[in-house]
Amino acid sequence: MAKVLPHLDGVFIQAVSEVATVNHMYGCGGAGLRCMTFTSSPGFSLMLEGISYMIGAEVPGVFVNVMRGGPGLGNIGPEQADIKLACRGLGHGNTHAITLAPADPQEMLDITILAFELTFKYRNPVIILGDGYLGQVTGQVKLPKDMVKPGIPDWAVYGDEMHRRNLICSIELSEPDLEIHNIHLNEKYEQISENEQRADLFHCDDAEIVFVASNTPSRMVKGAIQDLRKQGIKAGLFRPITLWPFPIKHFVPLLKNAKRLIVVEASNGQLEDELRLALSLQEIHNFPQIEHVRRFGGVLPQADEIIEIVTAEKEVQA
Amino acid sequence: MAKVLPHLDGVFIQAVSEVATVNHMYGCGGAGLRCMTFTSSPGFSLMLEGISYMIGAEVPGVFVNVMRGGPGLGNIGPEQADIKLACRGLGHGNTHAITLAPADPQEMLDITILAFELTFKYRNPVIILGDGYLGQVTGQVKLPKDMVKPGIPDWAVYGDEMHRRNLICSIELSEPDLEIHNIHLNEKYEQISENEQRADLFHCDDAEIVFVASNTPSRMVKGAIQDLRKQGIKAGLFRPITLWPFPIKHFVPLLKNAKRLIVVEASNGQLEDELRLALSLQEIHNFPQIEHVRRFGGVLPQADEIIEIVTAEKEVQA
Amino acid sequence: MAKVLPHLDGVFIQAVSEVATVNHMYGCGGAGLRCMTFTSSPGFSLMLEGISYMIGAEVPGVFVNVMRGGPGLGNIGPEQADIKLACRGLGHGNTHAITLAPADPQEMLDITILAFELTFKYRNPVIILGDGYLGQVTGQVKLPKDMVKPGIPDWAVYGDEMHRRNLICSIELSEPDLEIHNIHLNEKYEQISENEQRADLFHCDDAEIVFVASNTPSRMVKGAIQDLRKQGIKAGLFRPITLWPFPIKHFVPLLKNAKRLIVVEASNGQLEDELRLALSLQEIHNFPQIEHVRRFGGVLPQADEIIEIVTAEKEVQA
Amino acid sequence: MAKVLPHLDGVFIQAVSEVATVNHMYGCGGAGLRCMTFTSSPGFSLMLEGISYMIGAEVPGVFVNVMRGGPGLGNIGPEQADIKLACRGLGHGNTHAITLAPADPQEMLDITILAFELTFKYRNPVIILGDGYLGQVTGQVKLPKDMVKPGIPDWAVYGDEMHRRNLICSIELSEPDLEIHNIHLNEKYEQISENEQRADLFHCDDAEIVFVASNTPSRMVKGAIQDLRKQGIKAGLFRPITLWPFPIKHFVPLLKNAKRLIVVEASNGQLEDELRLALSLQEIHNFPQIEHVRRFGGVLPQADEIIEIVTAEKEVQA
Repeated sequence: MAKVLPHLDGVFIQAVSEVATVNHMYGCGGAGLRCMTFTSSPGFSLMLEGISYMIGAEVPGVFVNVMRGGPGLGNIGPEQADIKLACRGLGHGNTHAITLAPADPQEMLDITILAFELTFKYRNPVIILGDGYLGQVTGQVKLPKDMVKPGIPDWAVYGDEMHRRNLICSIELSEPDLEIHNIHLNEKYEQISENEQRADLFHCDDAEIVFVASNTPSRMVKGAIQDLRKQGIKAGLFRPITLWPFPIKHFVPLLKNAKRLIVVEASNGQLEDELRLALSLQEIHNFPQIEHVRRFGGVLPQADEIIEIVTAEKEVQA
Repeated sequence: MAKVLPHLDGVFIQAVSEVATVNHMYGCGGAGLRCMTFTSSPGFSLMLEGISYMIGAEVPGVFVNVMRGGPGLGNIGPEQADIKLACRGLGHGNTHAITLAPADPQEMLDITILAFELTFKYRNPVIILGDGYLGQVTGQVKLPKDMVKPGIPDWAVYGDEMHRRNLICSIELSEPDLEIHNIHLNEKYEQISENEQRADLFHCDDAEIVFVASNTPSRMVKGAIQDLRKQGIKAGLFRPITLWPFPIKHFVPLLKNAKRLIVVEASNGQLEDELRLALSLQEIHNFPQIEHVRRFGGVLPQADEIIEIVTAEKEVQA
Repeated sequence: MAKVLPHLDGVFIQAVSEVATVNHMYGCGGAGLRCMTFTSSPGFSLMLEGISYMIGAEVPGVFVNVMRGGPGLGNIGPEQADIKLACRGLGHGNTHAITLAPADPQEMLDITILAFELTFKYRNPVIILGDGYLGQVTGQVKLPKDMVKPGIPDWAVYGDEMHRRNLICSIELSEPDLEIHNIHLNEKYEQISENEQRADLFHCDDAEIVFVASNTPSRMVKGAIQDLRKQGIKAGLFRPITLWPFPIKHFVPLLKNAKRLIVVEASNGQLEDELRLALSLQEIHNFPQIEHVRRFGGVLPQADEIIEIVTAEKEVQA
Repeated sequence: MAKVLPHLDGVFIQAVSEVATVNHMYGCGGAGLRCMTFTSSPGFSLMLEGISYMIGAEVPGVFVNVMRGGPGLGNIGPEQADIKLACRGLGHGNTHAITLAPADPQEMLDITILAFELTFKYRNPVIILGDGYLGQVTGQVKLPKDMVKPGIPDWAVYGDEMHRRNLICSIELSEPDLEIHNIHLNEKYEQISENEQRADLFHCDDAEIVFVASNTPSRMVKGAIQDLRKQGIKAGLFRPITLWPFPIKHFVPLLKNAKRLIVVEASNGQLEDELRLALSLQEIHNFPQIEHVRRFGGVLPQADEIIEIVTAEKEVQA
């Protein structure tokens, strides 16, 4: 990025810390400019105070968190253990942000373009969650045909005449005023929930065994499904592209055929929690007991253990 | 504390920032000393990276977050909008920490004493969530009869002969080793979940209307219940003292009589989410649709609107 | 600068602190790029650790310190009380840097261009000392006819093939090696001292009363001299443009006619100390006793008190 | 200190950075408490902004700088290259602080006790300059017979009734007021200069060859003098204990017999500059040309080269 951005009239800054970074993001987004930053788990934790400020002040910005093994310093292997941090934690106060989970290089590109659209559409930060494997993989991607040069939005605090009277802040000393602001934010979250649910369905039409997985683990599941299908087992993958809002609309129709629900993830159930919460909030209580394959600390779920959970159970049932 | 601690052989440090604070906590807890810190919402966000390190390294420490109006700078009125941050978010990686929610001055004292016991018992940080009202209220408290002077635990990195070979860190470069460490932490979370659920039940024996509330809002609910009881309405309060683990064991028996479940909170449903998730993880899907009273930005739910939701509904039913 | 630089293929960064700034300077200069920063007294103090690192690692960079009233926070009036900090203090270790003192807008421009030449010529930071008055004055300046786009020097640590094997650091663990490096730096200081002494002489040819002053106070002295000349008093101004190295070569010839030496400065004798030290190091011990006019805290020496010291003395002598 | 201080009713704090440290010092000294800190060259540079604030606000505090090889990171060998930083540089603005240079363990103790007396007497920071050798040497010391427990001075901003109305700050927005404050500080510097010059004279009574040296190099000189005396050469050592104010009063009488002046130091002439400046400010211009032995980068001047400069010259003269 340091080499590419200057040729595109952009600027690359190596900030002195993650706390500095998120405040650069606040300033840059507040000026109406398209800005993004990249970090890995511990750095993302450090940005949460600032992200809460950006949400409160309705400042756009795209944050990429390449999730690594944790907790603490951990290692740089792939994990998905920050899903709860992006989907639930996002700093103090009533906060939410669209959280996107790409699964391959092309999607990493497309989703980043989408993230910029969404962050300006809703004036709310957008989070892209990758994992340590995606953070290091390379692949050919198809670039968009043309690049749009965006202007400075009306609300921005930019240094020209037109934007100078604008004000952006997250302080609201009067309690009734801050309540009104929170109600406004909650309505925005509702609207996002309604409009922005995205999912990828793989062999789901007739699926009796529905896997739920995102990021790199979803690719392991796809491999497993191809094997299972060869064995005549009707398996499919529901892959949330938006982890928040969880794409429950696209999931509910699958419950008609589903006999088993299996969440495959590189975390201690954080994706499963999102699914459970989404079902509960829809007042959906009739579904197969959720099973899971979970790995940790930089180890990814492998195709054979994904196949095993299906076939082993079958044998037992048989 | 600055004045009291030196007389008790303690030390009070005014740290230069919240990032410094959490690293002081790491160092102090790592040395096996009883340490605690106090902050309010934005400061707590800034501590999450360090808390994840402490959880990863199994370092004890007590964190008090007096939740205020958010997001961002917000105001210093009472809110409960960091429940998800303490119960779900707690920094990157697979993390959990016991989260305690006192409701009055005596409990603030008792729970803090308990927090120190628990943080050393499990070698895991413990969070105490207050709210902006509790942070400013005063009241008479009954002190414990005697003060125990604890020694330095075996595992601590203290400067004497006995403790010098100990090592505390959160880095684990090998993925299989970090997986083993995560499995160990998950087992600890399970054990905590099993052993440490705590709740306060108020008029719950025959309650048909079960309120769920914590912190200061629970006191408004208690007032409302007294009024409702006078009207012959069988209302009760389920008050989680541990927000994580959610005291689902103590809640389930109430479902037998409960005709309505009403969560009263100063947040956009963060306590309700904990309840929903706890029910779902227990595979409990048969319960009355959850209703709620929610206020924001430093405004607390008031007794009359709590009463109103009960009586208004009754009228409609009538 | 934030608005102008991007149009000139440059970059403007608002750093998060002065400590961050000097490290940005280290990085930028180490990459062989022309970089400068602006600060006012307290900020300059904070940069001294980094400047010592840059001197040790032979990294170029231009620092502008607009000296304000001190010590501590002080005020933003004009003072010259950081002369010793630039000429003597410049951070720990054996350090020196060319220190330039402009007196008007045109010279502020010309000296800055010169500063970039010198900082790359010697691979050593260059300091420009302004004062609070210069920092706020405006005036028409004549721009140079053409702008030279410099390349990346051989020694730089730039991201391309050619520069990748270069190494820049200020650590030298072996004492004999660090001694050799210090001898090299001392030789460089000698060479600078020999080559770069610059001064402006005003009515000095026949001056019997030689004023020494720099920055804005030199303009007050010029006004006073014009008055004194009208009275038939042979007064002149010796204005060091380089405060370090002190332009002693250009000063010595004036001693032939000089009957009085008067240092006029907005500090407690810091410019006078530079003069005294330069004379002593040249083993020049035969000169009129040095007199002075000194003001402090944002107050500048005024023409009348400069005239007064000359005429009052004359009266006494008469 | 971490182990000893708590037993003496003291507190030891490991600060998060040198910038934090100097601000802790400001706070602690401002509260009227005896506080000191230890650092090595780069850390001392980072403290200069804060030291200027303390001087401006008249806050006491003792700073120990164990000078190491520089510039920049350098190494941890002994050097004396921060003399100019302590005696001239001491942060922006018109600043001065008593600078003490011990030469052995007993003096390190005695001078530290003295430093506390002086810093409170003058309400001005005091600097103790050690060197990398002194920083690592051990030796038996004689402790004072009794320890005085000081009270809180009248001016301090302490948390009790009596001290609560006090105010300490370094800001003075009005220029005439800041000038008055500077004149007050300058008078204090004068008074210190008059009262606090300290030196150790070794074989100086009849010395024709007067060495000037401080810290560890002075011990090398003492060894050399013993050898020279055996050869019948009348050599003596003038060892400044206060580097600022330079003890010129004690030096001047030696000029009567002195035929040669030789400054021995582990820096590029910083001690010699202090001597030259002190002579010039006393208007003393008649003295033998100053010679020197200088080493750098952690290398100390050795007895043989100190002897050599005397005897070699003699041979040449012979």
